[in-house]
Amino acid sequence: MSAGFADRLVAAVRAKRSHVVVGLDPYPELIPPELYGGSPPASADREGWAEVFLDFFLGLLPEIADAAVAVKPQIAFFERLGFPGLRVYEAVVKEAAALGLLVIGDVKRGDIGSTAGAYAEAHLDVLGADAVTVNPYFGTDGLEPFLLRVREKGKGIFVLVRTSNPSAGEVQDVQLASGNTFYAHMAGLVRRWGEGTLGEEGYRSVGAVVGGTGSDQAGIIRSLLPQTPLLIPGYGAQGAKAADLKGLFGVDGRGAVVNSSRGVLYAYRSSGGDWKKAAREEVRDMKRVLWEAAYAE
Amino acid sequence: MSAGFADRLVAAVRAKRSHVVVGLDPYPELIPPELYGGSPPASADREGWAEVFLDFFLGLLPEIADAAVAVKPQIAFFERLGFPGLRVYEAVVKEAAALGLLVIGDVKRGDIGSTAGAYAEAHLDVLGADAVTVNPYFGTDGLEPFLLRVREKGKGIFVLVRTSNPSAGEVQDVQLASGNTFYAHMAGLVRRWGEGTLGEEGYRSVGAVVGGTGSDQAGIIRSLLPQTPLLIPGYGAQGAKAADLKGLFGVDGRGAVVNSSRGVLYAYRSSGGDWKKAAREEVRDMKRVLWEAAYAE
Repeated sequence: MSAGFADRLVAAVRAKRSHVVVGLDPYPELIPPELYGGSPPASADREGWAEVFLDFFLGLLPEIADAAVAVKPQIAFFERLGFPGLRVYEAVVKEAAALGLLVIGDVKRGDIGSTAGAYAEAHLDVLGADAVTVNPYFGTDGLEPFLLRVREKGKGIFVLVRTSNPSAGEVQDVQLASGNTFYAHMAGLVRRWGEGTLGEEGYRSVGAVVGGTGSDQAGIIRSLLPQTPLLIPGYGAQGAKAADLKGLFGVDGRGAVVNSSRGVLYAYRSSGGDWKKAAREEVRDMKRVLWEAAYAE
Repeated sequence: MSAGFADRLVAAVRAKRSHVVVGLDPYPELIPPELYGGSPPASADREGWAEVFLDFFLGLLPEIADAAVAVKPQIAFFERLGFPGLRVYEAVVKEAAALGLLVIGDVKRGDIGSTAGAYAEAHLDVLGADAVTVNPYFGTDGLEPFLLRVREKGKGIFVLVRTSNPSAGEVQDVQLASGNTFYAHMAGLVRRWGEGTLGEEGYRSVGAVVGGTGSDQAGIIRSLLPQTPLLIPGYGAQGAKAADLKGLFGVDGRGAVVNSSRGVLYAYRSSGGDWKKAAREEVRDMKRVLWEAAYAE
């Protein structure tokens, strides 16, 4: 068996001196027009757009592969094209892996055990992501097929704990009779689900998705889960700043990775100039800023 | 605009005198061997299996179209084949609609607003389901793109409230400081999300997924949400019996639909004989038993 996911993730952070995850969210209206020669495919032309998406990512991935530790393709934006989109998703996962990037499939699946088994097989075995995001609404038996692949196949999961969207608190900040918040209760389940997955680098392969913009919650979750890798979305376009992230990287500075999607992919729209160069520079900037935040006094 | 989803659902219940939803969960190992001439495709032959799945459902759907009100394709089992599986999912949705069946895409998606927008477009617009199941972990803004299509396009959603799997209680039965259970809190959100979607038949187009096997919870949710259509999974293979369902159909007997997947699709394995005939008879039996439960004194 290959090394556990957490060990592979931490090794990449150390080797690349980077906490950067690039989210792959293809928005047709934001993709550089040169990829379709100035005249976009019709909105119903799914095969046409699938080809544009593929060209975009095949051009992008080599630009970011040295400075990012992982990519996080957001499958919703591929599903929007139906099956031609899923074909591109598969190709992007393969190409990213070939370039030495870890792949975190942002699929947020969750279901009862037998169905979760089909999702785990689909996304970790067939489509071949190294890790996926999962939704914990079903409790333990809905995660068991994913956990099996964590323990036996070196895969990883990131469980939704506290998300960064405006309404998250309606569900996740609810106060429990125990005195806990709901998200702290979920953090407790994540700790239990991670038992037996501790790697040599001191982290478990059952991670948590924690929004960085509401920093009170993120700090509490960090202290509840010192050995859990955090996946922090929302850098850049969603408003998180490096200063909000200080303290979330753990005692050794390697306990979190931070995602930016639109801020990298479409950097050319604010910076002007060549889209590949703009994306490459944005990743390098982000890498430097996060490294400083992780190791600042 | 076509009629709201709830009105279409209730009209189908009345016209067909049926509460039956047939879940479409393709398990390669359970599909009648005659569909591949006795020699199954290799497990890695995704195109081969996709063809078998398609033939299976094209054969099945006409057998059940008169007695079932809806089908509920479970997309996980299609995703397991990668993009060829999603192509079959699309074809099955189209064929079911052409046969007059409502289609409830069992996708359980949920994400932050912009991503939820991509999922809602993918599943309700592009792939064309009449309704989908959704996961409410993100709160209101994660559901808004779906709700927009409920209000403006006659679509429906079924929100996970209390599921029927063994570990559901770890998350959903947690006691809140307010005195409520977590699932009752979620039921309150479902009521709010359904505001403005009341149809002429007295039901809202924002429904709830409620496991029938833990009947205490189901009964409580029914009383909290008298105008909410319930989607009750787990009949047959998952253990729910008609007696457990009494009281869940609402005051007019039309407030719930009940899903069976394996119990219908693979009925031939217990009954023997022709697989189409076995599925057809199973749906008719189920229809009769549920109708009696809905209108029993």
